[in-house]
Amino acid sequence: MAYIKLPEEELLPGIRGLMAFRPDTARPLNALAEVLLRDENNSLSRGERETIATYVSYLNDCLFCQSVHGAAAQCYLEDDGKLIGQIKQNYEEAPISDKLKALLAIAASVQRGGKNVTTAQVEAARNVGASDKEIHDTVLIAAAFCLFNRYVDGLGTWAPTDPQVYIPRGIRIAEEGYASFDAMKSIGK
Amino acid sequence: MAYIKLPEEELLPGIRGLMAFRPDTARPLNALAEVLLRDENNSLSRGERETIATYVSYLNDCLFCQSVHGAAAQCYLEDDGKLIGQIKQNYEEAPISDKLKALLAIAASVQRGGKNVTTAQVEAARNVGASDKEIHDTVLIAAAFCLFNRYVDGLGTWAPTDPQVYIPRGIRIAEEGYASFDAMKSIGK
Repeated sequence: MAYIKLPEEELLPGIRGLMAFRPDTARPLNALAEVLLRDENNSLSRGERETIATYVSYLNDCLFCQSVHGAAAQCYLEDDGKLIGQIKQNYEEAPISDKLKALLAIAASVQRGGKNVTTAQVEAARNVGASDKEIHDTVLIAAAFCLFNRYVDGLGTWAPTDPQVYIPRGIRIAEEGYASFDAMKSIGK
Repeated sequence: MAYIKLPEEELLPGIRGLMAFRPDTARPLNALAEVLLRDENNSLSRGERETIATYVSYLNDCLFCQSVHGAAAQCYLEDDGKLIGQIKQNYEEAPISDKLKALLAIAASVQRGGKNVTTAQVEAARNVGASDKEIHDTVLIAAAFCLFNRYVDGLGTWAPTDPQVYIPRGIRIAEEGYASFDAMKSIGK
């Protein structure tokens, strides 16, 4: 049970109940997720961006966000969950690009607090091909999930524990995105 | 010097240079700040909301955000800086309402991570008159400043150290808000 009374709470886990409760703040939050995670005008793939989101949500121990965005990442990366699991456990040893590894290092620093990012981390990312926009977006995705994770857990929302429940949600995000998302419309889906 | 090359960096401190660099993400971020901190349809005053934003930015040690939003709070609260200073040092002893004290306790928990918010804190806030929407908005403001603070410091932006520099900026936020804000237009102002 969340700390506040949410509409249709039993049907809307995590951030979805909160978005139904307060559509005025849901709108810019979904617009931010859409431009950061899905906009096609980006040299980071959607799969890479959802992987950064998932990893930060994992570090923040947010079950709902790491499950939803992990499912979206799996969908884009055609992963059965093995790769995302490896990245969470030890991304340095995972079969991903050196660029994504360097960006995940920056994201992990942001998760602990902005001042933890170092010049050396940024230079390391640039040395394996990361552009200014990619570094910018990595920091902002990591910072945004420090918002989303705190929002979801700070209001005590519930989240399904079965990872399989999230798979169709990930597919739906990949197909429809965040901006068109209306929590009330998706009740029961 | 920021970690990435920003337009007009010498004129645009903190988040403003980042917003000029990436207007597509600036738009939803400003829309979120506008609805959370300035929308008139809210039983928390603008001064109370900017105080929560300032306090979280202080806890995150973000000079730019605590100075800008502190200046906005000072403007709304007709404070010369003494009250905001007292709140940062020890809000429990500051001359503010019991409701704002209880909401600041929740905000401080969110700053450390969403799971730090307790049922007892939420009940304490409710017992001194906080509504569900006020509790919701407090958590989301605190979470949002965990984003803004990480964004500003994670990309290594600069910030003026003289508190007086921020005073006109606070007045401008109070008068014009965030949604109409265009970083490029405000160069030199």
